Amino acid sequence: MGGDYGPPEMVKGALEAARSGDVEVILVGAEDAIRRELGGQDLSKLPLHVANATEVVAEHEPPVAGLRRKPDASILVATRLVKEGRADGLVSMGSTGAVMVSAVTVLGNLEGIKRPTLGDRLLGFTPDTILFDGGTNTDCRPRDLMSFALIGSVVARKMLNIDNPTVGLISTGVEEGKGNLAVKGAYQLLKESDLNFIGNAEGSDIPVGKANVLILDGFTGNVLLKFCEAFSDRIGDWLRETLDGRLPAEEIDAIRTKLFRQTHTADVNGGGMIYGVDGIVWVGHGRAKAAQVAQAIGQVRLAAETGLLRELKLELAKLRGVGE
Amino acid sequence: MGGDYGPPEMVKGALEAARSGDVEVILVGAEDAIRRELGGQDLSKLPLHVANATEVVAEHEPPVAGLRRKPDASILVATRLVKEGRADGLVSMGSTGAVMVSAVTVLGNLEGIKRPTLGDRLLGFTPDTILFDGGTNTDCRPRDLMSFALIGSVVARKMLNIDNPTVGLISTGVEEGKGNLAVKGAYQLLKESDLNFIGNAEGSDIPVGKANVLILDGFTGNVLLKFCEAFSDRIGDWLRETLDGRLPAEEIDAIRTKLFRQTHTADVNGGGMIYGVDGIVWVGHGRAKAAQVAQAIGQVRLAAETGLLRELKLELAKLRGVGE
Repeated sequence: MGGDYGPPEMVKGALEAARSGDVEVILVGAEDAIRRELGGQDLSKLPLHVANATEVVAEHEPPVAGLRRKPDASILVATRLVKEGRADGLVSMGSTGAVMVSAVTVLGNLEGIKRPTLGDRLLGFTPDTILFDGGTNTDCRPRDLMSFALIGSVVARKMLNIDNPTVGLISTGVEEGKGNLAVKGAYQLLKESDLNFIGNAEGSDIPVGKANVLILDGFTGNVLLKFCEAFSDRIGDWLRETLDGRLPAEEIDAIRTKLFRQTHTADVNGGGMIYGVDGIVWVGHGRAKAAQVAQAIGQVRLAAETGLLRELKLELAKLRGVGE
Repeated sequence: MGGDYGPPEMVKGALEAARSGDVEVILVGAEDAIRRELGGQDLSKLPLHVANATEVVAEHEPPVAGLRRKPDASILVATRLVKEGRADGLVSMGSTGAVMVSAVTVLGNLEGIKRPTLGDRLLGFTPDTILFDGGTNTDCRPRDLMSFALIGSVVARKMLNIDNPTVGLISTGVEEGKGNLAVKGAYQLLKESDLNFIGNAEGSDIPVGKANVLILDGFTGNVLLKFCEAFSDRIGDWLRETLDGRLPAEEIDAIRTKLFRQTHTADVNGGGMIYGVDGIVWVGHGRAKAAQVAQAIGQVRLAAETGLLRELKLELAKLRGVGE
């Protein structure tokens, strides 16, 4: 029921995923609306089901209050399916706040996790580099940064299929001892860990993908992500002016679209996974369309198949007693 | 004596500035080397002097130890000229550490300043926006962020000639209450101040210059600055590949150079001012050449003429007793 486009795009995306085979989809929400979108489809031939939910938490509704008032909200019903083991994971296109709160309250956080983390590729230029935390943990202790490194390493192995992924700690200089207090503390934890820690990395190392997993607090991560997208848009506008009259307009547009795809990874992917809750949860962009919905379903399937969650639990257990 | 190019470029830049009139330059360093560079110039006709200094702190020498061992280091001699009122300000091309330490120990910090700050334009796209802190204060309390706002507002007025500059606080969302603990505390201080505070700004607001003065801690500032330059270089490389065969090579090079100038402001300016010490101090990039040296001298002259330091002292006095 979420997302800017509601059931039409969700159902289209689910149909696409179900038709590609190897995945069974349960559509959760107002059954009438969903059946209307499914139209005359013969569901008996497709691995597709509908689970009714009578309520919806709206995009701008305060998540905690909204979920308390609406026990039959679609996001709660979907999260309960995961909790009860009737689904291997869930995909929602928002609101992000409602998905996060529902995941944390229904599924619970994994051991050692105070608040789940979002992390993903920042750039298409560097497909083998993911950045944690993408913005949920604004005040980080060394052990929080360490948890991102543990999570990121599992994600790189399971979702990107990278053996022994390298981990870099974003700081103000490459030398040990550079950075703020949290980074200095995390450096010591990482040095003593069994992760493939390559030391500090600087802001300039991000666009060249110096490590497979780059770690930074969620405040800096949030600012950086939003800056990256807007800066690339600014350069795109500048390119249009600069190339105007030198290349045909449609070629300039194509170049700008290419640049957009290199630098708006979250848009291209349609969102990302929430890590640190006891379940597989994808929270997408409100503006995700059918193709991104199908892609998200594929990512959740991959996570389930590769045993991502089991591995995360094993790794996070290493945080026990660290810097509490 | 500093900078990658040493006396040749420094002397050339100083000559350029002295010839342009309205400024008197004292060249500080090994008198022999300086006189050799000055060659046959008739100094009696130029507002140019030489002050001998027998020692130099090298680029990679630990600043504190280096300055202690070398009391006649050129940077110390130059800073003392400022301290004694014999110079209105100083320009050095590094090392940055030695200039910072010399400035703090000889001139002292202004009231309320724990560590001086660097701040400047981030982008050529947004000439009326400066960003503080550029990287010196990695762990910030609310009052540190507040001091950047006070300093930034003075710099915008005096150096950029902007009346009543707007101040934005970089956070994870525009709403009050978003961000990390330091930002939440700074929001309250800014709200109660007489600065032209427009509230929080996000990472996406930076490339569009939402405010004249954008405030963030030096950790995030450092990461962002270095990311910005390297990201723009990465886009520049991508542009070369993308435009290859569509435009002549020299046109592509010219576009990349233009992009570089929009996004490497510190390089274009050749460095920046240190704010928060009791004197006007410019610390340039090691790779600064004569043109940047002359430009830096011009900036120091502007700061002296507009009474920047007096105004900074007045404004920073407002921090007295705030969040100690």
